[in-house]
Amino acid sequence: MTAHIITIGDEILIGQIVDTNSAWMGQQLNMQGIQIGKIVTVSDTHKDITEAVDLAFSEADIILLTGGLGPTKDDITKKALADYFGVEMRFSESTYNRIQRLFKKFGKSITEAHHEQSYMPANADILMNKMGTAPGMWFEHEGKVLVSMPGVPYEMKYLMEAEVLPKLKSQFPGKPIAHRTILTVGEGESRIADRIDPFLEALPKNIKMAYLPGTGQVRLRMTGIGDNEKELNTLLDQKVEELKPLISEFIYGFEKEKLEEVIGRMLNEKGKTIATAESCTGGFLAHKITSVPGSSKYFEGSIISYSNEMKMNQLNVKPSTLKKHGAVSEETVKEMVQGTLDLLKTDIAIAISGIAGPDGGTPEKPVGTIWIAIGDKKNTKTYQLNLWKDRMKNIEYTSTVALNVIRKFLLER
Amino acid sequence: MTAHIITIGDEILIGQIVDTNSAWMGQQLNMQGIQIGKIVTVSDTHKDITEAVDLAFSEADIILLTGGLGPTKDDITKKALADYFGVEMRFSESTYNRIQRLFKKFGKSITEAHHEQSYMPANADILMNKMGTAPGMWFEHEGKVLVSMPGVPYEMKYLMEAEVLPKLKSQFPGKPIAHRTILTVGEGESRIADRIDPFLEALPKNIKMAYLPGTGQVRLRMTGIGDNEKELNTLLDQKVEELKPLISEFIYGFEKEKLEEVIGRMLNEKGKTIATAESCTGGFLAHKITSVPGSSKYFEGSIISYSNEMKMNQLNVKPSTLKKHGAVSEETVKEMVQGTLDLLKTDIAIAISGIAGPDGGTPEKPVGTIWIAIGDKKNTKTYQLNLWKDRMKNIEYTSTVALNVIRKFLLER
Repeated sequence: MTAHIITIGDEILIGQIVDTNSAWMGQQLNMQGIQIGKIVTVSDTHKDITEAVDLAFSEADIILLTGGLGPTKDDITKKALADYFGVEMRFSESTYNRIQRLFKKFGKSITEAHHEQSYMPANADILMNKMGTAPGMWFEHEGKVLVSMPGVPYEMKYLMEAEVLPKLKSQFPGKPIAHRTILTVGEGESRIADRIDPFLEALPKNIKMAYLPGTGQVRLRMTGIGDNEKELNTLLDQKVEELKPLISEFIYGFEKEKLEEVIGRMLNEKGKTIATAESCTGGFLAHKITSVPGSSKYFEGSIISYSNEMKMNQLNVKPSTLKKHGAVSEETVKEMVQGTLDLLKTDIAIAISGIAGPDGGTPEKPVGTIWIAIGDKKNTKTYQLNLWKDRMKNIEYTSTVALNVIRKFLLER
Repeated sequence: MTAHIITIGDEILIGQIVDTNSAWMGQQLNMQGIQIGKIVTVSDTHKDITEAVDLAFSEADIILLTGGLGPTKDDITKKALADYFGVEMRFSESTYNRIQRLFKKFGKSITEAHHEQSYMPANADILMNKMGTAPGMWFEHEGKVLVSMPGVPYEMKYLMEAEVLPKLKSQFPGKPIAHRTILTVGEGESRIADRIDPFLEALPKNIKMAYLPGTGQVRLRMTGIGDNEKELNTLLDQKVEELKPLISEFIYGFEKEKLEEVIGRMLNEKGKTIATAESCTGGFLAHKITSVPGSSKYFEGSIISYSNEMKMNQLNVKPSTLKKHGAVSEETVKEMVQGTLDLLKTDIAIAISGIAGPDGGTPEKPVGTIWIAIGDKKNTKTYQLNLWKDRMKNIEYTSTVALNVIRKFLLER
């Protein structure tokens, strides 16, 4: 079973946005055992769209199209598809009504453009898009399938997960394929490779392993193909058990769990509450923690003390500490932890102060110097990081390290 | 002049890495007035590579290939190209010597694989790669150009800037091309379309307009092609001036500026400071504000009052207010603003409280109910949003709205 992914949009051709949709779709298809033959990006023109679709139908069984479904005039995918299939456009009452309800909810009235948007090629099965106005469309043509979806990533992902992937699975059942994902934090790809190379060499031929690196994290994904689903799953579980002791200190979870979710689970289980005090990360750690539904059970809040005044007035950091050691120092983050514990009465507090960059460094404390402290009533631990010149990279990486610092602190409690 | 970009690699097809090379190359070509007709990703196989090259030669004048040039066995681009052009592989003494010198410098000895790597298709002009072992290759074929480069981003970028772009410019001096990007916030694509449709209809044929939607924002991009660069730029500037009054209240900036950068600039210009008090956005607004370098000049900090206790104890929200109106209410966010102004002594404070979801809604206050207040010593304004069930979408969208609320508040001051 081979799929082609077609992305439509001049904004991708001229590099105004990076196409991340195709990679995500490729991952999902690959996990279902569907091979991706080609990824093609073409312009929003009738000719380029129909030619790309024609070529894809000659080479692939499944064609996934994204982009070109908005209500504005440069979105002509639907018209091109109707012409390609030789069908008329048909008004979809249900789509129009759904858009109308959506707009009513937001207190807005529907526009002429949305009336237009409710026309679909007559041979399309409509896939309801709960995340936006443009529905997805499912076409069957000479035993093959074409799906057209909006290019907005969360709308595309919703449609893929809720509609497209399950339908593909039932329509094109392949050999059993199964995956195990091991989630690690705190060590890079090459170091992990050094440790697990002999394990990888000894893997049976029907199991492959891929490294999926992220910010401060590496996911290890094992993919197995077999004839018998139960045996395949038993084999994969066994291989995970063999892998675990080789890198146990870096493993924080499995499958789709996020580090912030693991921490949430640990805090809930241990009945502990936490608060953060952030300077250079500017709220990104609090954002990560609160991105987890239900985090209000264990997260009290945060003091984003961007200024020295806030460090002193809210968190009780001593003026003499700031003067002697500076805002970016072990002493300051320790006092920030103490101040947060006193102020917010949580079981645990974590504090971060650093120079995110690109400016503000000194020879002794260059850009990328970051201090983290974590503590409860009895103990405080501190960590120093020496990172990069890149502001966003420093903020994101530091927040991941901080989450791991919380995890390790909780492990010992 | 039309170019195709071909990216070679299974790791891209299965979504193990996101192809950022093509976007960068597309930008560079586009700025030289070269149109990008297609971006294609294919597998590392002889058949897929030669077929993609063949198709590209039939449709484009310039073909840029990346990937498949490393010393490992799955890199077969060179062999495929030699076969496609019907030429032999030829040993490149200069390449071999350069690799040898490179390895000597790092104290390593050259391997058999690197000897292999010094063979090139006989018709290739070699482009020296100062950033790695694999050189680039420039081919001319029936009046067209094909360039093969390594897939490692910094090696590709080096070769593009040092060799490929200057050579293309001298070989294909094209028509001038220019862009203008207008940044809007606070209204959707279809509403903007309603307002500017007559303007778009009246645009001269050499100017095109594209909508680029994001979270709560829409970018409008005009692209013009002309014979005279100066006249083209004058025409585009004139069209931007004509467009502005049609949607003036939504325009926050131009070109690559971000909303948070505009706000930073306005705060700096007006000499005002700001602080945030966030409940449901959990620090994401503070993160957005502090993602701008130099934001410490105007951003004092934030109280992430996730719990009611923090709203009362830190921000002085009255227990009776919380009891009578609830944490998600106009009254509460107004008191949060006042509490923040009193506590942090900034000129302006903004407060957010809402139900981000997916749980926690009631019939009167469903998930997605959000209140925002902004104020200074004299005035307070409030806004209510009714958003979705999706937690992350609510957090991101609310933060964008909040940034726009800050912008509008500053406009009046």
